[in-house]
Amino acid sequence: MSTPKPELITLDNGLRIVTEPMPGAPSAVITLRFTFGAKDDPMDRLGIARIAEDVSFKGTPSMDARAIFDAFDSLGVRRGSSTTVEYTQFQAQIRPTHYEKTLELYHTIISTASFPDSEIDVSKQLTLEELKRLEDNPIQQAMYLTFKAALGDPMGRIPLGEPETLALIGASDVRSYWTEYCDPSRLIVAVAGGLDQEQIISGITETFGGWSSANRGDSDSHIVTVADQAVHHEKASEQEHIGIVFGSIPRTHEMYYVAQVAVAILSGSGSSRLFTEVREKRGLAYSVSAFYRARQSGGMVALYAGTTADRAQETLDVCRAEMARLAEDVTGDELERSKTILKGSLFTSGDLPEGRASSLAEDVFLQGDGRSLDDIATGIDSVTLDQIPAYLETFPPMPQTLVTLGPKPLA
Amino acid sequence: MSTPKPELITLDNGLRIVTEPMPGAPSAVITLRFTFGAKDDPMDRLGIARIAEDVSFKGTPSMDARAIFDAFDSLGVRRGSSTTVEYTQFQAQIRPTHYEKTLELYHTIISTASFPDSEIDVSKQLTLEELKRLEDNPIQQAMYLTFKAALGDPMGRIPLGEPETLALIGASDVRSYWTEYCDPSRLIVAVAGGLDQEQIISGITETFGGWSSANRGDSDSHIVTVADQAVHHEKASEQEHIGIVFGSIPRTHEMYYVAQVAVAILSGSGSSRLFTEVREKRGLAYSVSAFYRARQSGGMVALYAGTTADRAQETLDVCRAEMARLAEDVTGDELERSKTILKGSLFTSGDLPEGRASSLAEDVFLQGDGRSLDDIATGIDSVTLDQIPAYLETFPPMPQTLVTLGPKPLA
Repeated sequence: MSTPKPELITLDNGLRIVTEPMPGAPSAVITLRFTFGAKDDPMDRLGIARIAEDVSFKGTPSMDARAIFDAFDSLGVRRGSSTTVEYTQFQAQIRPTHYEKTLELYHTIISTASFPDSEIDVSKQLTLEELKRLEDNPIQQAMYLTFKAALGDPMGRIPLGEPETLALIGASDVRSYWTEYCDPSRLIVAVAGGLDQEQIISGITETFGGWSSANRGDSDSHIVTVADQAVHHEKASEQEHIGIVFGSIPRTHEMYYVAQVAVAILSGSGSSRLFTEVREKRGLAYSVSAFYRARQSGGMVALYAGTTADRAQETLDVCRAEMARLAEDVTGDELERSKTILKGSLFTSGDLPEGRASSLAEDVFLQGDGRSLDDIATGIDSVTLDQIPAYLETFPPMPQTLVTLGPKPLA
Repeated sequence: MSTPKPELITLDNGLRIVTEPMPGAPSAVITLRFTFGAKDDPMDRLGIARIAEDVSFKGTPSMDARAIFDAFDSLGVRRGSSTTVEYTQFQAQIRPTHYEKTLELYHTIISTASFPDSEIDVSKQLTLEELKRLEDNPIQQAMYLTFKAALGDPMGRIPLGEPETLALIGASDVRSYWTEYCDPSRLIVAVAGGLDQEQIISGITETFGGWSSANRGDSDSHIVTVADQAVHHEKASEQEHIGIVFGSIPRTHEMYYVAQVAVAILSGSGSSRLFTEVREKRGLAYSVSAFYRARQSGGMVALYAGTTADRAQETLDVCRAEMARLAEDVTGDELERSKTILKGSLFTSGDLPEGRASSLAEDVFLQGDGRSLDDIATGIDSVTLDQIPAYLETFPPMPQTLVTLGPKPLA
């Protein structure tokens, strides 16, 4: 099965469209990614991007929140949305027959959101609740604290904001923010699933094509740099949560796929090194994983391990030893297995239309064009054994930020 | 698109096969569900089903754990497994070309698992870690405590077992357990995805067909009964976690789909009543949801809400008011929207092969045969407005167990 190169189409108003038609598939996914996020929040209004994302769907001049929710539910749309440091994203999983109506609804809401005062108040209240609930989700809390320490401001921001800055956000701030940032030139629309190319393009052109742009272009991107430090957050618990971040390769680098294979050798499967050494051989930690994350200007590798306090130092030592050993003794068998896993996961890691729409939006966001499944498979296949140490020499796991959340600091 | 009735095939050794071929789909999913689980654990060996599930993949006479993990990873298999109160399940998401080899691997492992002593020790250690980690996952902890209080023993068991009973589990116990319970007559194999019917059936017949059965039949099922009580677990936190369980309809009941629509009106979408009243109108709780769960002999509805302690009583009061109101004033619009959402979710709630294989295994487990997507859609469409109060009269939300985990008890 050969997959064509995804076509990138840019409308006159700057809106970019990237597609993967799968005629006959019983569902389709629309991903709307805006190239602004928590990094653009004013320092005294941290959290405003997240509030705007939430409340944009709570009112237009002709619909209140109830009417909007009813409209989506009447189409059977499965909706999601998220605000990250670098982008704001809305996603809809639909039956293909509802494609045009779903697009119309998104266009109306996004381009005429009225941000009612009362809805801003509810959203601020719920965001405060969500911040407090981090106390009850120490894994996520540990990762937020790790990224915050490692990347600093603005790239390490927690998109939820802070209680003090949330309190200052008024409805007029949110309306001004949306007017300033929300623009078709900052929107990437990715569609994958049971539709044909012509229908996908005409649907978007007819709804979003008439939305006029102030031609703002992308907001500023910020380079990923990682601080060399160890930070401990005391928490009365039997559990110690360990987060590590170090810099890695950007998406556009020629050794990008080498990094993906290297991280897959370290983590993500039953035969991966961290799982084998930390969990299976030593029973040290129930949960240990490492993952790569790209940003617009850079990349990083993050590691998480959760264990009991008395096993935490050994867990950390084993993780560090495995990161060091990666430059030394990867075998041909390991390389081939990791390639097989990475290629298999293109088809076996969830709903295909959803995965492809997200992936294409991310591609355009990070590198300006979309990758086909074949492009990705070819990239993975091209990695050779001697490239692994070469990659690790160029992008060593240092400087490194270590964050611990639990009863005792580690060294 | 019309979907055929799934065919149920029973091999001579009692193994049941249920399928949904999707020729051309790029992935396939194999679900192996055994009809034994934590409910069958001896009282002094609670947790043994879970340990057996984990360690069954850690050794055979010809392969150690490392060789087994490498074999799966070389096929690019995305694996999962779980032990619940009523069943033990293994699941593989694969590229269709690896179907036969994956089946062979599962057959070899399941039918010749050797349960090495050292692997039992590691698994017990990791299970203890997982139990301790519940402290850091109060949402899951609250739901475990709610089911435990509501359903008692054995139906309310936590499959992880308890520290005292885990300590008593020896390797010989696990081997005896597996010999006694693991039998083809207790295995349901569901396959969905990019394979044709003939290939699916011949693959299973050639691998599992020769596995001889002691003809044990299913282990005993237990009726769901819910205690009328309120239980508080003190926890120093700003957050209060609220769990409620009450009895509902079994899968085989003629009003089953009425219950599904009723719960969908209550929870699961932006226009649902709990979301609207608790979250959107009052900003009381960041997270509130209700869901239906079937068991082999009965069913139940569970509700979860998490909020700050000072809002907890109001949150509970609003949830209860909404449960009561459900019998009174559902509108035709709400009914139609909920049907649309439920039917849409058949196609938009994740990977289709994975969803269908899980759903078919559950169908055979609960009602003895598989339902097609059309069967389910027809069931949903058949629900009428007057059936909602009739269902709630037959299955009222009482007796009811209320469990709170947090700084204060509620009434």
